Amino acid sequence: MEVKEITNRDVDFAKWYTDVCMKADLVDYSSVKGSMIIRPLGYAIWEQMQSVLDRMFKESGHENVQMPMFIPESLLNVEKDHVDGFAPEVAWVTYGGNEKLEERMCVRPTSEVLFCEHYKKIINTYRDLPKLYNQWCTIVRWEKTTRPFLRSREILWQEGHTMHATEEDAREETLRMFNIYKKFQEEYLALPVITGKKTDKEKFAGAEESYTIEAMMYDGYALQNGTSHYFGNHFAKAFDIKFTDKDNTLKTPYQTSWGVTTRMIGSIIMTHGDNNGLVIPPMIAPFKVIVIPIGNVDDKLYELEDSLKQAGITYKVDNSNKTPGFKFADAEVKGYPIRIELGARDLANNKVTLVRRDTLEKIEVSYEEIVDKVNKLLDVIQKDMFNKAKARRDSMIYEASNYEEITEIANNKSGFIKINWCGNTECEDKLKNDFGIKSRCLIEDEKVSGPCSVCGKEAKTRLYIGRQY
Amino acid sequence: MEVKEITNRDVDFAKWYTDVCMKADLVDYSSVKGSMIIRPLGYAIWEQMQSVLDRMFKESGHENVQMPMFIPESLLNVEKDHVDGFAPEVAWVTYGGNEKLEERMCVRPTSEVLFCEHYKKIINTYRDLPKLYNQWCTIVRWEKTTRPFLRSREILWQEGHTMHATEEDAREETLRMFNIYKKFQEEYLALPVITGKKTDKEKFAGAEESYTIEAMMYDGYALQNGTSHYFGNHFAKAFDIKFTDKDNTLKTPYQTSWGVTTRMIGSIIMTHGDNNGLVIPPMIAPFKVIVIPIGNVDDKLYELEDSLKQAGITYKVDNSNKTPGFKFADAEVKGYPIRIELGARDLANNKVTLVRRDTLEKIEVSYEEIVDKVNKLLDVIQKDMFNKAKARRDSMIYEASNYEEITEIANNKSGFIKINWCGNTECEDKLKNDFGIKSRCLIEDEKVSGPCSVCGKEAKTRLYIGRQY
Repeated sequence: MEVKEITNRDVDFAKWYTDVCMKADLVDYSSVKGSMIIRPLGYAIWEQMQSVLDRMFKESGHENVQMPMFIPESLLNVEKDHVDGFAPEVAWVTYGGNEKLEERMCVRPTSEVLFCEHYKKIINTYRDLPKLYNQWCTIVRWEKTTRPFLRSREILWQEGHTMHATEEDAREETLRMFNIYKKFQEEYLALPVITGKKTDKEKFAGAEESYTIEAMMYDGYALQNGTSHYFGNHFAKAFDIKFTDKDNTLKTPYQTSWGVTTRMIGSIIMTHGDNNGLVIPPMIAPFKVIVIPIGNVDDKLYELEDSLKQAGITYKVDNSNKTPGFKFADAEVKGYPIRIELGARDLANNKVTLVRRDTLEKIEVSYEEIVDKVNKLLDVIQKDMFNKAKARRDSMIYEASNYEEITEIANNKSGFIKINWCGNTECEDKLKNDFGIKSRCLIEDEKVSGPCSVCGKEAKTRLYIGRQY
Repeated sequence: MEVKEITNRDVDFAKWYTDVCMKADLVDYSSVKGSMIIRPLGYAIWEQMQSVLDRMFKESGHENVQMPMFIPESLLNVEKDHVDGFAPEVAWVTYGGNEKLEERMCVRPTSEVLFCEHYKKIINTYRDLPKLYNQWCTIVRWEKTTRPFLRSREILWQEGHTMHATEEDAREETLRMFNIYKKFQEEYLALPVITGKKTDKEKFAGAEESYTIEAMMYDGYALQNGTSHYFGNHFAKAFDIKFTDKDNTLKTPYQTSWGVTTRMIGSIIMTHGDNNGLVIPPMIAPFKVIVIPIGNVDDKLYELEDSLKQAGITYKVDNSNKTPGFKFADAEVKGYPIRIELGARDLANNKVTLVRRDTLEKIEVSYEEIVDKVNKLLDVIQKDMFNKAKARRDSMIYEASNYEEITEIANNKSGFIKINWCGNTECEDKLKNDFGIKSRCLIEDEKVSGPCSVCGKEAKTRLYIGRQY
């Protein structure tokens, strides 16, 4: 592993990203085209994400289940918008062993139809509602061009699918999960996300409303980092799901779905990473600390390990036979929030060096202070990472009141642009054709003043637009 | 849900098993043939298993990774024994969207070849060893006849794949994981398992030695409940994996793999269940206690919930509008280790009834004693369940010193039979053809006395045989 050879992110951001994924040992490639191997550090970050989110889901009353991984073609075809959206990008299983299947099945690209088929069986009266199910699994979408974590044929994710007696309850759930995602990404991933409703053009195939969490990457591109959908009762009607309500009449329930993926790992890399590699926010870091012993410091090392364990601070020790310089660089590539340099010479003077990964600042402390200082530093780093990312994001949000201004910004800047919008898809198509820019989300807390920034007709809403991964 | 209609297990054990799976809401069927839906209670049991095992794996130095779910046909073909074992039962993906794939890919039936391909890239010197990887995932085997948890086209499992510098290390690892499985199943699942080495005929496709955990079900049939394999360096050679050792020579590493599946849920049902339904061992129960309020007991209920939370005892409250009788039956079907009947009339006399699920014994305690008594009872139940299962198992282990005795037992009894064995596959084939009985595992701590119980030639070893799921 040649940890120093990471492309400069201001020279070639795409190459920098792949370099960090590979040099930090997050992923590897195999002969399975379009899929990736998630290596121990990458998977440990995902486990951290899973464990926090799973707790949040359970605390808000959700239960985990596991649906089949396959969907027979006829089942996928039940809801029209849905099949139109997904059929072109699914993997088809046609043979079981040596026998051709009577009906081919796709590997699930998402599981709405499977949940609906099950809900039809288990929902009979209002007492069976709400049903608040979630599933952690892998889905498959046959992408042509792939990038680690961002776009892959196999995606690790969770998908929540819930059913409610009333539209009101379902809308409330859609926003509840949207807010859980927002809180998680801000507080744990230190991402200053932009959130709101998707336009009709950009919403999920089959949804009535889609809410999105949009993170802005270092290069100003957006990463759609989670969505929560209100389905109304389209699917429920297509699947003929009915329940007897309190008033003894048959009604159709209302549905939501919501999901986040390993893509969130990509957003951490592209928001917080730097030319030395990965920078992991402390709240989500599998190991908060890397300890690098220099010289013979075994006794002090064991003592320190005990103290870290007692304080509940996860850590790794680099005991390899590499030089300290190599170990420092490796610790930086892998993004441990704090590095503890435990040197024999320093210890003779009761000194230990802590190094913050986010700023690379060196802090000298006495041996006895380590745990206390580490605990405080982790909080500071988490906050500073959020604020730094927020300042950068804010500096890359532009305003445009007409097409000339949009053109000027689109040709010279990267970031999000706030515009006025008439609400017509034609304007979105124009932005996409001219600049490869898409709608991010509606800005519902800002008043419209002035005409549509694209066509000049009457504007109905404010809108974030921007290029995306 | 008609909780009372469970087939008597002594009348039709197979039907009883399916009834329990369905009535306890563990699984459901869908239009995806051969696959099952794992419902919240079933999945929660699996999560409990995962969480204990994952901790044990991590404490013994293992790291989790995620390999692709697909295997290109050419990659599956690299190791001959392996492909011969698995090719007839894999699901083949032949189309991605509308395009026919140049090379078809199967959904992984197991991931040896994927791990080997990766290990070839990341193992270079002795410093890279051992590699101790594990993966939690779903695999697919195209079974013709399926039963919930026991045999399904999709299987949730974990698969450990490790590489070692020496044969000794790899053999040690094989036994280490074998012992972790044994400990887990005895201590957490309350299963008095029988463990040992598989015969050559029964070992894993491609393995040099396979160790098996055999649980005996209520009906005397065996359930293979986990295996740990020593591969030698067959795969490593087939994949040309080499490392530079300390002595500066190129060597081939040694490999293991080990796995357990959701089948373990089946073993709990078929070992501990009874005519009232599921009985979950406390150590693995997602909810240790079900609380059933009778009449208006809200204040005492909230107080009890607080006490249970503080004591770290997981619980559920049945607040449905059903009758107490229905709720008791439902609590029994679902197997909660302890039921707390919180009745208004009893509480007036400061009395509460606890009911043990394993024995259905009712225990009257004062309200203040509940938590203390529950904690003690959970320990007692766990031990009693193990001992009860062990006594039954022991009563169904027979000895046979010749073929007449084997025939007599095979025709009239169900259970395991201990025999002397010459070591020849012909004798195993004969047992299979005549009685549908297979080798379970070698008995290495018993001395052979007398000839082979099948063919009468010189016996080399003692052997457990028995019918299996």
